[in-house]
Amino acid sequence: MGSRIEADYLIETPADPARAAEAMAGEQSSGTFTAVPGETPELKARAAARVEALEVLETGVPPSLPGAMPSPQGCTRARVTLSWPLETIGPDLTTLAATVAGNLFELKQFSGLRLLDIRLPEAFARAYPGPRHGIAGTRRLAGVAEGPLIGTIVKPSVGFTPEQTAELVQTLAEAGIDFIKDDELQADGPACPFDARVRAVMAVINAHADRTGKRVMYAFNLSGELDDMRRRHDLVLDLGGTCVMASVNAVGLAGMIGLGRHSLLPIHAHRNGWGALTRAPLLGWSYPAWSKLWRLAGADHMHVNGLGNKFSEDDDSVIASAKSVLAPMFAAKPCVSMPVFSSGQTVRQPYETFRRLGTADLIYAAGGGIMAHPDGPAAGVQSLRQAWDGALQGRTAEDHARGNPALARALERAGA
Amino acid sequence: MGSRIEADYLIETPADPARAAEAMAGEQSSGTFTAVPGETPELKARAAARVEALEVLETGVPPSLPGAMPSPQGCTRARVTLSWPLETIGPDLTTLAATVAGNLFELKQFSGLRLLDIRLPEAFARAYPGPRHGIAGTRRLAGVAEGPLIGTIVKPSVGFTPEQTAELVQTLAEAGIDFIKDDELQADGPACPFDARVRAVMAVINAHADRTGKRVMYAFNLSGELDDMRRRHDLVLDLGGTCVMASVNAVGLAGMIGLGRHSLLPIHAHRNGWGALTRAPLLGWSYPAWSKLWRLAGADHMHVNGLGNKFSEDDDSVIASAKSVLAPMFAAKPCVSMPVFSSGQTVRQPYETFRRLGTADLIYAAGGGIMAHPDGPAAGVQSLRQAWDGALQGRTAEDHARGNPALARALERAGA
Repeated sequence: MGSRIEADYLIETPADPARAAEAMAGEQSSGTFTAVPGETPELKARAAARVEALEVLETGVPPSLPGAMPSPQGCTRARVTLSWPLETIGPDLTTLAATVAGNLFELKQFSGLRLLDIRLPEAFARAYPGPRHGIAGTRRLAGVAEGPLIGTIVKPSVGFTPEQTAELVQTLAEAGIDFIKDDELQADGPACPFDARVRAVMAVINAHADRTGKRVMYAFNLSGELDDMRRRHDLVLDLGGTCVMASVNAVGLAGMIGLGRHSLLPIHAHRNGWGALTRAPLLGWSYPAWSKLWRLAGADHMHVNGLGNKFSEDDDSVIASAKSVLAPMFAAKPCVSMPVFSSGQTVRQPYETFRRLGTADLIYAAGGGIMAHPDGPAAGVQSLRQAWDGALQGRTAEDHARGNPALARALERAGA
Repeated sequence: MGSRIEADYLIETPADPARAAEAMAGEQSSGTFTAVPGETPELKARAAARVEALEVLETGVPPSLPGAMPSPQGCTRARVTLSWPLETIGPDLTTLAATVAGNLFELKQFSGLRLLDIRLPEAFARAYPGPRHGIAGTRRLAGVAEGPLIGTIVKPSVGFTPEQTAELVQTLAEAGIDFIKDDELQADGPACPFDARVRAVMAVINAHADRTGKRVMYAFNLSGELDDMRRRHDLVLDLGGTCVMASVNAVGLAGMIGLGRHSLLPIHAHRNGWGALTRAPLLGWSYPAWSKLWRLAGADHMHVNGLGNKFSEDDDSVIASAKSVLAPMFAAKPCVSMPVFSSGQTVRQPYETFRRLGTADLIYAAGGGIMAHPDGPAAGVQSLRQAWDGALQGRTAEDHARGNPALARALERAGA
């Protein structure tokens, strides 16, 4: 990869795509729209962004977004790769973001512009912590050697007191759950303060661990200011907790990097707000590009939605996201994060999830599928494990349900 | 406003809009898609989000975004107001963001969803610093009692050494400029390290201030990790600097709040990356909602683009943005930020800008309009001041050019 930063874009432009790509490169490096005295050929050669590749995909399409220059002949879609010298940006994630995803999306030359991927020099691997625990560390802390971590979310999302939260955790721990997370709406509100919640929940988790040897991993949502997040992390660590969670879009890069440098626990990265950055097909960010920032910052777990989810994302996109966080970023520091599958997940999706992903190195979070199992939460957890056991043996949930009554009962319900 | 948080949305849905609005409220508060044992009527009454208002705007429109439920009868657009109890969220900006702009944009019930505005209880005013300097403090530090601060941006954006940057600052200071900012692409890259740039630039600014009594305000781009930003701020302060700049989307809320609490200097908030959040009309954020987060965090100056800009934003949107940051957020803490007009600004826009905005409490940043004035940068700065003098007297640039040769020459060029 050498010493240049590369970024791939999907662009749509009413102009000549080669000239539009040059405008992108100019806007995001040395250029200005009016020639200025200091911009010598030597300076441009040293500092300018370059158009490395351009492939026209489609012509004559109507503009996807308003505000572009007029397009009497329709617009052209193309895939473009730009590069920048590391020398001007430095191995710095905030300047990187301002460069590869700064004042580009609004340019009049484009009726669509989407960042598809980024490739970074090894200097970034040296500059940032990356996931401290990743898959292996998460498995060790959760005591789950193989198969997915079966997880769930505290529901109702808000409204429970710390004590009510702890009661639910007790029920889930007894049901055999591996992983529980706070809802992203719950951080440190007056009705359920962070510290009180951690104390109440960890009392249950510690007692359960003492009794059974199984320490449930609970991702406490510590999102907030950096000094508060550090303090909250220390409390979780002190009380024997094994995971913290943060909403990456709400906290932002500076906060997540600071947390990543400080944390001794796996960081569960929640992506709420992601839809605003990605749902318009010709605008914003693709998941592989976006998630690389958080992986470098230290995200051990990355949310990727789930197959057949309740959101607008299709299954191909979910699988592409999960594969992207499992693919190494650097030889010396792979920054592999554990993908988190959630949203409407039941016993129905493990077979297809494993068939398409090829690994069970993931967290599989189900809500109603556990608490609303007709035979109770323990059967709910068991049914999900059975569905995954089947999937790992290449068997669909229907096939595997024979002889596995918890799964069979869950299927009846999921099919209803 | 009381003790509830309110948010207004533009929604587009293939479903019944009242039911879609209830789904939003459910997803972003107590609800889950499957009834769970703990969600009692008492808990819902205490913790649930409420639909406060719903106004149907249009029916039978095609879906704006892919991935929504099928819409055989077309979609309905509506304006919706939701509210949440402060009790569950707390006066916390990161939890607020995860709530009002979290897992909403991706819901299948919507073919479009955009956050238009937010209204917050006074508890937020007490919890956050807000702008420390705002308009009055900026005017005092820059020595500009009335009219806009005439500003510019260091161009080329990248490629200059600290010494070359300082030479340009010397030229601009001698030209009579009020305000200069780093480009957002320039923070602490190896080719132009932050500390060296500050030292070189402040030597020029201090010498010029000693000689003339005029201290040019320079917004040093300190974007990066929080501890680095604090350290860089302290260096700027120690050397007599009067402003720091940060890219808010790249730094994020936790970082900007941390900087806001620490900074003794005006914070110049750069919005690069904003287009990804706003350019799709039925997705993301409107500027008034988004900018409130940064205003509370401490942004003294907020970028609003400019009339007749080089980007895709229309003039109505620019004026609405500028008016929004000038409107008080709270009686006890108005959090008014100084709007920054930039992008293709010349002597042509002041008249219309003032006519529509009704105030000159702003920073007016021009690039080529200054450095490329046919009679040099001093004439460039002078021409902009003359254009603004005219605008404040209700005179167009053309009217006011008689007897004002710098303006007349700039008009010839801008008209070319």
